[in-house]
Amino acid sequence: MKSYRKELTLNLPARRGFINITQLVEEALRESGIREGLCLVNPMHITASVFINDDESGLHHDYDQWLERLAPHEPTSQYRHNDTGEDNADAHIKRQVMGREVVVAVTNGGLDFGTWEQIFYGDFDGRRRKRVLVKIIGE
Amino acid sequence: MKSYRKELTLNLPARRGFINITQLVEEALRESGIREGLCLVNPMHITASVFINDDESGLHHDYDQWLERLAPHEPTSQYRHNDTGEDNADAHIKRQVMGREVVVAVTNGGLDFGTWEQIFYGDFDGRRRKRVLVKIIGE
Amino acid sequence: MKSYRKELTLNLPARRGFINITQLVEEALRESGIREGLCLVNPMHITASVFINDDESGLHHDYDQWLERLAPHEPTSQYRHNDTGEDNADAHIKRQVMGREVVVAVTNGGLDFGTWEQIFYGDFDGRRRKRVLVKIIGE
Repeated sequence: MKSYRKELTLNLPARRGFINITQLVEEALRESGIREGLCLVNPMHITASVFINDDESGLHHDYDQWLERLAPHEPTSQYRHNDTGEDNADAHIKRQVMGREVVVAVTNGGLDFGTWEQIFYGDFDGRRRKRVLVKIIGE
Repeated sequence: MKSYRKELTLNLPARRGFINITQLVEEALRESGIREGLCLVNPMHITASVFINDDESGLHHDYDQWLERLAPHEPTSQYRHNDTGEDNADAHIKRQVMGREVVVAVTNGGLDFGTWEQIFYGDFDGRRRKRVLVKIIGE
Repeated sequence: MKSYRKELTLNLPARRGFINITQLVEEALRESGIREGLCLVNPMHITASVFINDDESGLHHDYDQWLERLAPHEPTSQYRHNDTGEDNADAHIKRQVMGREVVVAVTNGGLDFGTWEQIFYGDFDGRRRKRVLVKIIGE
């Protein structure tokens, strides 16, 4: 069994947004030399998400609006977590809705994806550098 | 390390619904010959979900009603994604709530499940053939 | 390839709440002797969740309040699932929002975590003993 580990560094310029990281993960997979196995991708932070969906800007707008209605950023005083001096309780909630990680099949040296599957980094408390972990095991 | 890959094909007759695919995944596991490892199951489409819960029709009704309140299909014009000519933005949202994939432990040649755990394919934009990927790695 | 399996037993005294199980998972990892691989942690029950987030009591309060607004326990008659004699339909829904399982990278014999990542068991229908499965594969 082989394993490979890589950290990606991302810095979203806004508080919230989505970045397509599919090519970065594919690059890590090529570097690994692994042809058959599983690939885990997860943020190392707890107010961000890695998920798989469509690379369509209208949909990303819909996700953002819908998440903001579901767990609004303001008023920040509505969340007990923000009593600690933080203002990001909503980001911790949004990340749970969108999920932490994805596990992707590796087949014949590639990410084993359907036509429209793309991997996104979603940050709900951006404007800082954050790390995403890629861990691949297989042969 | 061994690996095994299988595609299941599903065709939900309605726009939304749930299909128990546990036996299909167990069949793939038997074919793999793998006794210890991990089994990934995910739709290869981005408006469908694979998740683990109860095989109880009342609960499935509750999930459907609750998801429809959370992200209603209509009016379709409320979603920017639908400006592209699609009408399935709600399905992309519902799939994120229910999750994309499951990873299941394989122990002693079987799916290592508690009493009530069953694997479901949930489609939120059905009435077409879709593929579900089963990827198993182990020994 | 090596694999290791362990069941944790948890008993939440209240209907709903969160327990930090990071140390229990780290203990299982040490017992496994595995240095590089993947670690799956999931409840073997369908009204509970394993997820990764912050060990901060205010945030846990926020999660609980937010989930209760999203899928209220009462009136229990609002859910078709509860016609079966159960009163836990809301718990099946809350578990889907928070997710079933986590997959964690194992690197150099440890859980490959960012600074604030901690593993939680969340129960939404507690006051009974439940099992959490830890399955580790690697080398």
